[in-house]
Amino acid sequence: MERQLPDLADFHHSIPVQLRFNDIDILGHVNNIVYFSLYDLAKARFLETMRKGHIDFRKVECVIANINCSYIKQIRFGEEIEVLTRCIRLGERSFTLQQCLVESPTREIRSVCETVMVCFDPETGKSAPMSPELRSALIAYEDLPVD
Amino acid sequence: MERQLPDLADFHHSIPVQLRFNDIDILGHVNNIVYFSLYDLAKARFLETMRKGHIDFRKVECVIANINCSYIKQIRFGEEIEVLTRCIRLGERSFTLQQCLVESPTREIRSVCETVMVCFDPETGKSAPMSPELRSALIAYEDLPVD
Amino acid sequence: MERQLPDLADFHHSIPVQLRFNDIDILGHVNNIVYFSLYDLAKARFLETMRKGHIDFRKVECVIANINCSYIKQIRFGEEIEVLTRCIRLGERSFTLQQCLVESPTREIRSVCETVMVCFDPETGKSAPMSPELRSALIAYEDLPVD
Amino acid sequence: MERQLPDLADFHHSIPVQLRFNDIDILGHVNNIVYFSLYDLAKARFLETMRKGHIDFRKVECVIANINCSYIKQIRFGEEIEVLTRCIRLGERSFTLQQCLVESPTREIRSVCETVMVCFDPETGKSAPMSPELRSALIAYEDLPVD
Repeated sequence: MERQLPDLADFHHSIPVQLRFNDIDILGHVNNIVYFSLYDLAKARFLETMRKGHIDFRKVECVIANINCSYIKQIRFGEEIEVLTRCIRLGERSFTLQQCLVESPTREIRSVCETVMVCFDPETGKSAPMSPELRSALIAYEDLPVD
Repeated sequence: MERQLPDLADFHHSIPVQLRFNDIDILGHVNNIVYFSLYDLAKARFLETMRKGHIDFRKVECVIANINCSYIKQIRFGEEIEVLTRCIRLGERSFTLQQCLVESPTREIRSVCETVMVCFDPETGKSAPMSPELRSALIAYEDLPVD
Repeated sequence: MERQLPDLADFHHSIPVQLRFNDIDILGHVNNIVYFSLYDLAKARFLETMRKGHIDFRKVECVIANINCSYIKQIRFGEEIEVLTRCIRLGERSFTLQQCLVESPTREIRSVCETVMVCFDPETGKSAPMSPELRSALIAYEDLPVD
Repeated sequence: MERQLPDLADFHHSIPVQLRFNDIDILGHVNNIVYFSLYDLAKARFLETMRKGHIDFRKVECVIANINCSYIKQIRFGEEIEVLTRCIRLGERSFTLQQCLVESPTREIRSVCETVMVCFDPETGKSAPMSPELRSALIAYEDLPVD
């Protein structure tokens, strides 16, 4: 739990997110579950940037295998929040995205999330090697070591 | 059903809304239910503007009595959408907000919604006369006839 | 607003609904927007019953044109709630469903909703006459007058 | 990722969950984010069982510090799903719940999730020792080793 927080300077991709009034729970905070909607939106935008254009979200290229999310500090309605996204691991058949929810004015990290995405062949319904296009896009964007 | 669409020039309040990836349903459109989240956010922002500041959303001033929403044309993920809000009726104990979901570039109306809000006394749990502050703010903002 | 409540004896279709912890809003009540998720589930189950089997929800047969929902009394987490659904109008190209959220032990109506569904041809993207199968199923189930 | 699946015989708490029509995403599966609503509901029910009664969810006793969720196999609308919950770790100021989404007829595990809950003092806004009542209830229910 004494997890080291990521260095925000290592992220090249950020989007502002708009909180909704019904994101608030009984305690006046953004509900824990809503965080995943925000991360999910940023993930879609990150992948669009990688693929340099609009993605056909019906043609699945990768599925989520694991989500690991830490809640550092609550978010309140009205706070200005952005989501930072980067790729921190690139395998043959999977990759890992790291994301942060950050309060924009203070750069305070409210939550950190890591998502393992597995590449997928919709024909066979099984995992598959990453497409060369996505692979080289991620390497170029993040300047990544390859495992 | 041959409802006449409102004239957008009659609205003084508009906010852009951010669609989320999980707002999309099995058909690739923004789900019908999500519209109410967007309207709800715009309603909160409209009431904040009326009250010239941050509202304590735990101190209920009014509750929703009725929502009447027409779906004119589907919304797709990636479209640029805004919500327009105005007050179209001001009663002693209730008022009616009219809202539109509009595609920003074309000004095309995708949905129209009317919400009846009833003023409420949290002490008694019953309907109550509208506070003079909210009343005069709505009149000033909308230049409304009073019934 | 002095709307007359429907007679529950007129409904032949009912499903119990399970409330989720994150359905609760800042005031400790089931959020207004969640009602539409509950109505939506009951609508899908009602249509499945009509079509005597599992529906392919990717093949759209009808779309929602209008939703009119009245909030009678709040719902709290832990209350036992069911949704009653019936067809109250059958046109050539559209029909209207009426639904109630009812607290099961007391039969108290918490909300009433009417939804206009328009039949739809996915090929042309336009409204279309109702399929004879759906039409005769609704007439048989509800013993409806035809307009 | 070659995570060993838990043995379902080790769980004493299970609730059936009702899927909603709008839980389905563009691919016809239950959306990844919805899993957290299902886990959250089961967590609330588990804690109610521990405390032998209704909990006042406004009096926070513990907050979520980390969620780690693995997606094993997709869930489709219409499948019969239950959530199993148990406590697998009991610390001085925190505990860990393990949960599974299981298809009831086949007992197939579709997802596994671990949640670290930190006990919390609403007065100070800081972490606090677990209440003796919760502690002894968890030990009695799960027959747990104490760390």
